[in-house]
Amino acid sequence: RKHFYGYTGRTVAKFLVVVFLGIFTGLLAAGLSTADEKLITAKLSLIESLQDNGLPFSGWQTFGFHLAWSIPLLVAACCLVQFYAPAAAGGGVSLVMAYLNGNDVPDLLRGRTLIVKWLGTMCGVTAGLSLGPEAPMVHIGACVASLLAFLDFGTLFSTKTKREEKLGQLDSAQSTGEGEAIAEPWHSDADHREFVSAGAAAGIAAAFGAPIGGVLFSLEEACSHWSRRVLWRCFLAAAVATFTLAQVHPRWQGGMLSFEARTRDRAMENFDWAVQLAFFVAVSVSGGLLGAAFNVMRRCLWRVRASRSQNGLRILEVIGVALVTVSAIFLMSYHLGRCIRVPKQWQDEDGVKYGARLNCPMGQYNDVATVFMSVPAETIKRMFSLSVSVDEGSEGPEDFWACSDVNACRFTPRSLSTIAFSTPVLMALASGLSIPGGLFMPSIMTGAAFGGMVGMHLIQVLPSWWNIQPGVYALVASSAMLGGVFRSAISLVVIVVEGTSGIDFLFGIILAVVVANWVAGQLPGGKEGAYASELQREGGVTFLRPEAPHSLRQLSAGDLMAVDVVTFQPIESLDRVVEVLRKTHHNGFPVVSQQAGEGSQGRRERLEGLVLRSQLLVLLQSRAVCDGRGQPLDNTSHLQPEGIPSQRRASLDARMRSFFTRPRFRYRRSLASKPEVLDALGYPAAHTARSSADGSSCATEDGIPPCQEDLRGGFTHPPLERIPELRLQLGNGTPIPAATFSARDGHVNRDDAVVLPRDLSLDLRPFMNQAPLAIRQETSAPRAHQIFATLGLRHLCVTDHQNQLVGLITRKDLIRVEKQASRGHKGAAALALP
Amino acid sequence: RKHFYGYTGRTVAKFLVVVFLGIFTGLLAAGLSTADEKLITAKLSLIESLQDNGLPFSGWQTFGFHLAWSIPLLVAACCLVQFYAPAAAGGGVSLVMAYLNGNDVPDLLRGRTLIVKWLGTMCGVTAGLSLGPEAPMVHIGACVASLLAFLDFGTLFSTKTKREEKLGQLDSAQSTGEGEAIAEPWHSDADHREFVSAGAAAGIAAAFGAPIGGVLFSLEEACSHWSRRVLWRCFLAAAVATFTLAQVHPRWQGGMLSFEARTRDRAMENFDWAVQLAFFVAVSVSGGLLGAAFNVMRRCLWRVRASRSQNGLRILEVIGVALVTVSAIFLMSYHLGRCIRVPKQWQDEDGVKYGARLNCPMGQYNDVATVFMSVPAETIKRMFSLSVSVDEGSEGPEDFWACSDVNACRFTPRSLSTIAFSTPVLMALASGLSIPGGLFMPSIMTGAAFGGMVGMHLIQVLPSWWNIQPGVYALVASSAMLGGVFRSAISLVVIVVEGTSGIDFLFGIILAVVVANWVAGQLPGGKEGAYASELQREGGVTFLRPEAPHSLRQLSAGDLMAVDVVTFQPIESLDRVVEVLRKTHHNGFPVVSQQAGEGSQGRRERLEGLVLRSQLLVLLQSRAVCDGRGQPLDNTSHLQPEGIPSQRRASLDARMRSFFTRPRFRYRRSLASKPEVLDALGYPAAHTARSSADGSSCATEDGIPPCQEDLRGGFTHPPLERIPELRLQLGNGTPIPAATFSARDGHVNRDDAVVLPRDLSLDLRPFMNQAPLAIRQETSAPRAHQIFATLGLRHLCVTDHQNQLVGLITRKDLIRVEKQASRGHKGAAALALP
Repeated sequence: RKHFYGYTGRTVAKFLVVVFLGIFTGLLAAGLSTADEKLITAKLSLIESLQDNGLPFSGWQTFGFHLAWSIPLLVAACCLVQFYAPAAAGGGVSLVMAYLNGNDVPDLLRGRTLIVKWLGTMCGVTAGLSLGPEAPMVHIGACVASLLAFLDFGTLFSTKTKREEKLGQLDSAQSTGEGEAIAEPWHSDADHREFVSAGAAAGIAAAFGAPIGGVLFSLEEACSHWSRRVLWRCFLAAAVATFTLAQVHPRWQGGMLSFEARTRDRAMENFDWAVQLAFFVAVSVSGGLLGAAFNVMRRCLWRVRASRSQNGLRILEVIGVALVTVSAIFLMSYHLGRCIRVPKQWQDEDGVKYGARLNCPMGQYNDVATVFMSVPAETIKRMFSLSVSVDEGSEGPEDFWACSDVNACRFTPRSLSTIAFSTPVLMALASGLSIPGGLFMPSIMTGAAFGGMVGMHLIQVLPSWWNIQPGVYALVASSAMLGGVFRSAISLVVIVVEGTSGIDFLFGIILAVVVANWVAGQLPGGKEGAYASELQREGGVTFLRPEAPHSLRQLSAGDLMAVDVVTFQPIESLDRVVEVLRKTHHNGFPVVSQQAGEGSQGRRERLEGLVLRSQLLVLLQSRAVCDGRGQPLDNTSHLQPEGIPSQRRASLDARMRSFFTRPRFRYRRSLASKPEVLDALGYPAAHTARSSADGSSCATEDGIPPCQEDLRGGFTHPPLERIPELRLQLGNGTPIPAATFSARDGHVNRDDAVVLPRDLSLDLRPFMNQAPLAIRQETSAPRAHQIFATLGLRHLCVTDHQNQLVGLITRKDLIRVEKQASRGHKGAAALALP
Repeated sequence: RKHFYGYTGRTVAKFLVVVFLGIFTGLLAAGLSTADEKLITAKLSLIESLQDNGLPFSGWQTFGFHLAWSIPLLVAACCLVQFYAPAAAGGGVSLVMAYLNGNDVPDLLRGRTLIVKWLGTMCGVTAGLSLGPEAPMVHIGACVASLLAFLDFGTLFSTKTKREEKLGQLDSAQSTGEGEAIAEPWHSDADHREFVSAGAAAGIAAAFGAPIGGVLFSLEEACSHWSRRVLWRCFLAAAVATFTLAQVHPRWQGGMLSFEARTRDRAMENFDWAVQLAFFVAVSVSGGLLGAAFNVMRRCLWRVRASRSQNGLRILEVIGVALVTVSAIFLMSYHLGRCIRVPKQWQDEDGVKYGARLNCPMGQYNDVATVFMSVPAETIKRMFSLSVSVDEGSEGPEDFWACSDVNACRFTPRSLSTIAFSTPVLMALASGLSIPGGLFMPSIMTGAAFGGMVGMHLIQVLPSWWNIQPGVYALVASSAMLGGVFRSAISLVVIVVEGTSGIDFLFGIILAVVVANWVAGQLPGGKEGAYASELQREGGVTFLRPEAPHSLRQLSAGDLMAVDVVTFQPIESLDRVVEVLRKTHHNGFPVVSQQAGEGSQGRRERLEGLVLRSQLLVLLQSRAVCDGRGQPLDNTSHLQPEGIPSQRRASLDARMRSFFTRPRFRYRRSLASKPEVLDALGYPAAHTARSSADGSSCATEDGIPPCQEDLRGGFTHPPLERIPELRLQLGNGTPIPAATFSARDGHVNRDDAVVLPRDLSLDLRPFMNQAPLAIRQETSAPRAHQIFATLGLRHLCVTDHQNQLVGLITRKDLIRVEKQASRGHKGAAALALP
């Protein structure tokens, strides 16, 4: 099994996945960044040429042109999202977090989502909305990772294992006992999760040119399950992504947002930091408040937004926001912007133009319009360099102090304050739309404008020995704003440090992030960062925090668990299995042996194991039935009368393990809990019950809890008949005549559905997890939470002291109890500070 | 319970601990760094004045002086370590890791260890051995954290809880049922571990001026249990430590090793990196090999070293190594060093002299002697700046290309290669001595010398458009050497980046660390980094890795567990408890209820709970006895006949929880497993058995496994009679006449030992953990390992499907099986790369 100097083929394959993940993510980031720049530059050139052609000051024409530019782009992005890849909306970071936490988010990591995310982000950013491309890069990296992980590396390196070529053929071969062992997938679910973590790291790394920041972001925010191996994978992917981007993108030391902070001749020294400490703290507090205010505003807007399924309303919403944003930009530019002489550097930067003229005479630019319309990364870079005089080289540094003269500064304080207080509103409007786009970049811009404004005011007030540097204030306020919005800590610090290439400002950045985090945490509406509130908004996503909330303290596992658990016997009748699978959405079923009346408490349900829905589906699909005593009923039974033949068992085992990694079933985890899957497997509803004949109504009889609402929000699934592996061919010699499935009308031909004989059973013993983790019901609830979260469980059995099953804890139970308990317990629960 | 705007007093206390931890660690680092610099400068001045006084070239005199300087310092350090604080030897990082992993390392975090560590590190570094002060800073930070955590913050903020003042008084009060509830400790064991993690982060942060690097180091290497809260605490402590150091220490942007990499006028560009990639890879490979070779050499030397308890030999060893080191330095300086003109900057750096003259004429310096004798941090800084011409400003950059002329370079290639290949040997000699000192600094110096040599050779060979910069090569090789020695990844990168303030070289550093790690991992002896091999060397330390080794794959929990577990009944006879505690070292005992012959398998031992040794000791100490049916036998029993009164139970509970945090018992966890503790509690050996009368012999009768060897290596414990809380006063009214304990002769007066009546029992039910985590014996071994490691367990019960106890898994079992299994399984197990 060893090749390549002690590495197995799988190890090499995983290594290659990580390297190529970095390369592709870097290339996609470079492409996105270049496309944005080119398109925005083209827009500005067009506006300029429009103005030059006879109508120099026609604001309405320019306004109309801008609308005609923005709205089609946004509508295109919105249509792509609504009709082709709904999972691509928004930033995507919180959904990636949810996936890594253990949720199944349908279509989150598919190829189409990747394409739409990339195109939509390009449209959203170039259209001029206050959205950034950084958070989408996290999602893009995660998609790339998932797609690469599903490549079939197995065939590249291993000669023994054979690819599962056509499922139907193999299935019939197996049911006659002749089948070869199915190739196991070359990576496990855990590997897949780790690749996605690495993809998130690579995305952030490419977005900011911050490899270490990317790793830490993945670690602090994205990953729920962390190990040393994840660290290595994230590290490698992030480094490769940054390197690739740096090689491809014209600006070395890349990052799409490669801002840089520069100081004047007299750099910030120890003494200056100490003297200005109060100002920095004040700026950080304000930045944190601004971030928290944005979060509150955003949450309020969520209430009035169109729901995901209303396509028309969603498109109208995008058009409306575009209208409002462009109008606001033009109004502010005309009424609050100032015309400033264009500095030399902006003119002759090898073709790349910067600065929007709008209503200004030739050779000048409108500073507000420039901020909103030009390439945002360039704007941020210039804000962070506010401390440097405009025309470097040509004029001495003493010219800098003339910043009270408007021509010597790039932006006036009035414009900066306009930007600082309008961008959060525009950002809040834009951030819930049905187009891709993130919050990093506008948050940084808000903070930079605010800090720059404060710094410029301070310069005018204080004597020159204070050595006030507005660029440093802009940097500090940006960090604070990020801290207030995202409530991250160390990853933000590193991202900003790496992004600005400025380790000299480390203390300011740390101060800003810590203070802003603390301030935002004190506010009533600021307990949660942007990601946490997004996660709360997602219906059906259950995000399990790694640490148990305080509210669980007084409870025990018995309070957490769900009682009335649906259980199976070790040898369970086929009827009941089909019925339970059809009527419930549960994914795991404890297997108990009922030993009647041994003790005094009546029937005893001793926990024997745990069987998964996917395992049951494979058993049903393979027709691995037996009689009531566990004797196999297919044509191989006479060979080994003591149970299922071992070869067949191994084959079934492999099929169970690879259930969710088969081609075309990869993104369809949620399908397995639909009743239609049983139709497709040839166990039509007609057989089991009268009430559930249509397969979608929910029954509450027989102690089975009612099935829950569809958890997937507005995501649509293709009809089942498009999934070929669910269309079964009947195995040779199986005694059950299965229903034929007609792909034309999309329904089971009820005529062919034959009532199955009553004594058919499934033998669960060889396949169930014979040692499921169980805790005693006296266990404290925080401990149960810890066990559940740190081990990444999905089902945790609760037993009494005689190993009898008394309940089952799932993610939903934990979340439900947390919510109930936290209603009565407001306070310091969410605060992460020591 | 809430004070201070929603924070409890405990939260504020924890916050203060973290802040003061940072401040004190920063101050200690500043003091250490300053003392080292002053002493080394004084040494150089003395040597210079010695040479000036008439005998300019007397090498023997200088040699003698250097010996007379070094040996007393080293002997002093060695004596302090051997006779006062043995835990202070070496770097200490691996022991801190072991502590955080869950081991009890006696005296590791005491005040005396802190003092000796600080003094000893100062002596070792100034004496000229190849040892650095960085790793000791980790230990120092951890000690500071532990000491601060044991301060009694509780009384500062909480008015209700009362401090446990005198244990004896309280004990008698409680045994009469009148006792108030004992104040719970204001922090838990987990908090203490988190403070120590933060201390390690602060130590590294102060050592390198790298706050983020410190956090990552703590995360990647030190912490075994990681959470978001640990991250915050580490972050805060590291930032405060760096800030404090920067304020106090003369060099801003501090770090004791504040090296900086500078490039020539034409900086390294994208193109240069690509062109020189092959060279950088080659340098990284060599650096990794060098690091691995050092590790192998070090491990070989361990075999011939004196054992820890041989004080005389240990001192002789230190003297011998000092002799060898000083001789080697002088031999190399005289025979391989070159005399080079002292550049201007070295002369007039406001009093700080740099450069050792030795055998050179006035105005020149011997380059080899300079490297070995001067302040190491200064040397490294100069090596990293090799690319810059010697006399900046006065001569143009073109002068740099004259580096083939020896006077234009600071160090000749010959000297650098001498240093690069001799330092690892000297470092290996010095690193196992009985003095404090770490490996970071000499590793960096080795790498810097090697890389600088390669770069200078390349300059001479290649044309100038290659833009070879020896300083960059030195930086890359240093990173590679660190990667080869320590096998860390991301933390090293960040430490080097922050330390050098050079984010421009990020790619080179990442490349070096990754390549060196990989290369070192391929070598037969290089599977383990310096810390891992140190941990293996420590006797009695069981380091549980977070991920299960491959070798466990084929096993199940049944193979891991220890059978023949010593168990107790829910109501257990006092005799048996005392006997078991005396004869075993176990710390946890499952409580089982034996229900005779209910099934067919004879006696059934159903798992009911788990009781800890400390809980039993508290019960014994408090004389909380009962009769065979659970009725309390002390004078309060007539009040509440149904069991132990609830007030008393709460008091006992609090005492059990605070058992290891009481004053003067904090560092004495290992004492609780000694038989002497039972003597001290008044249950002398005379009572229980004939064979164990001396309390130290091991009995194997009664199914109790033989007690293991003392696990603590050479650490000594003070005799028990010095620990006042173990000297008990007898509670009023208890029916047991206890033995009096005589502090004079240190032995129990056997005459007073009275044989206890046979029917006395302890009721364990109210105190035992009623819901211990148990797994089924069919659970796979990697899963069991994961459960054990991620949940931080100490005892994991193994049951069958009827909840009957079949075994117990402890750390030792896991380590034992791992070792057994890995003997038959050599290979890729230890490799962390993806």
